[in-house]
Amino acid sequence: MNRIITVGREFGSGGREFGRRLAEILGIAYYDQEIIMEIVNQTKFSEQYVRNIIEQKPAISFPIHAGRTFNMIGNTMVEQSRMVYQKQCKVIREMAEKSDCVIVGRCADYILREMRPYRIFLYAEMESKIKRCRINEPEHENLTDKELQRKIKEVDKQRARYYEFYTGQVWGVRINYDLCINSTNWTVKESAEAVARFFMDHYKE
Amino acid sequence: MNRIITVGREFGSGGREFGRRLAEILGIAYYDQEIIMEIVNQTKFSEQYVRNIIEQKPAISFPIHAGRTFNMIGNTMVEQSRMVYQKQCKVIREMAEKSDCVIVGRCADYILREMRPYRIFLYAEMESKIKRCRINEPEHENLTDKELQRKIKEVDKQRARYYEFYTGQVWGVRINYDLCINSTNWTVKESAEAVARFFMDHYKE
Repeated sequence: MNRIITVGREFGSGGREFGRRLAEILGIAYYDQEIIMEIVNQTKFSEQYVRNIIEQKPAISFPIHAGRTFNMIGNTMVEQSRMVYQKQCKVIREMAEKSDCVIVGRCADYILREMRPYRIFLYAEMESKIKRCRINEPEHENLTDKELQRKIKEVDKQRARYYEFYTGQVWGVRINYDLCINSTNWTVKESAEAVARFFMDHYKE
Repeated sequence: MNRIITVGREFGSGGREFGRRLAEILGIAYYDQEIIMEIVNQTKFSEQYVRNIIEQKPAISFPIHAGRTFNMIGNTMVEQSRMVYQKQCKVIREMAEKSDCVIVGRCADYILREMRPYRIFLYAEMESKIKRCRINEPEHENLTDKELQRKIKEVDKQRARYYEFYTGQVWGVRINYDLCINSTNWTVKESAEAVARFFMDHYKE
């Protein structure tokens, strides 16, 4: 069976960089945005639509909370969300079956649970996440620290909601992961190197 | 400043073995039961009494929940509990100031926060903890799996209560640790070696 590493992460904790570095050092495949592009290829939906659904915009993708105002349009959207999720499951399973890989986000830890992936979760203190977000900040985005903090919390809330909706598990709870890494006091590079070495040692045995 | 590693752990997750191995590989001091013996040396209390207080027997050591029945005996016990905790703080700080070390439990992550220790937390799935407890089970203790599970939960509940009482923080919550390791699928030996290597690499730089 292939060696699968999944990386869940708080927004701003460096999970994407961690996953990319880990895959690079181990010389194995890395999947992140590639999942979205593959879903687009396999469906009639636009990239933007898939992103909206997959990147957890619950107002658009889960109108099931609308109660009495729930209607056919909502229903279609829920159906399409489910369809995209099913496609995501299929794409992720195909990727995992192809070769060893690192997969970032996308409920991959749950979707691939029968393949017993090594499940990592990255998190950090708010101050550290703000600092990291500033480095990767889009040029046009001029958020104050308070606004950025609100954004970070909102993205994580959406991730948690999405994860829990599809997996029935609580997002970020330690028992659902093999290793939880706080990236506040160590560089992501150092952490990725340490974890990579752990895998290299283990696979030598 | 000395390199301090603190190890918090769920009962049965192998935290003590992990700490011991880590200290051995790194060639640094290891403190666990030594803390209790040092408190005994520095107070007039018996080893058993200190153990009762320090190993979180809340019914004995925290009668503050007794409400209206709260009395002088209770008050004295609370005072003595606090005194033992203060002594514990002093002993732990002295140990940390002496040399590099690994300290297991005892709120050391919080007590030494100004020395910025590397804070590790070990946890595991219940089945794995039961298995580990069976290996270390005292001969006279013939618990069923259900009883053992209850004991494991009870010990952790006591640890959580003790930790929260003195630190004001929630025990086992990821943001209070630098690394949280699930010992279910990997041996404690492997995990200790990986973490030790991380430290050795880092200290070479």
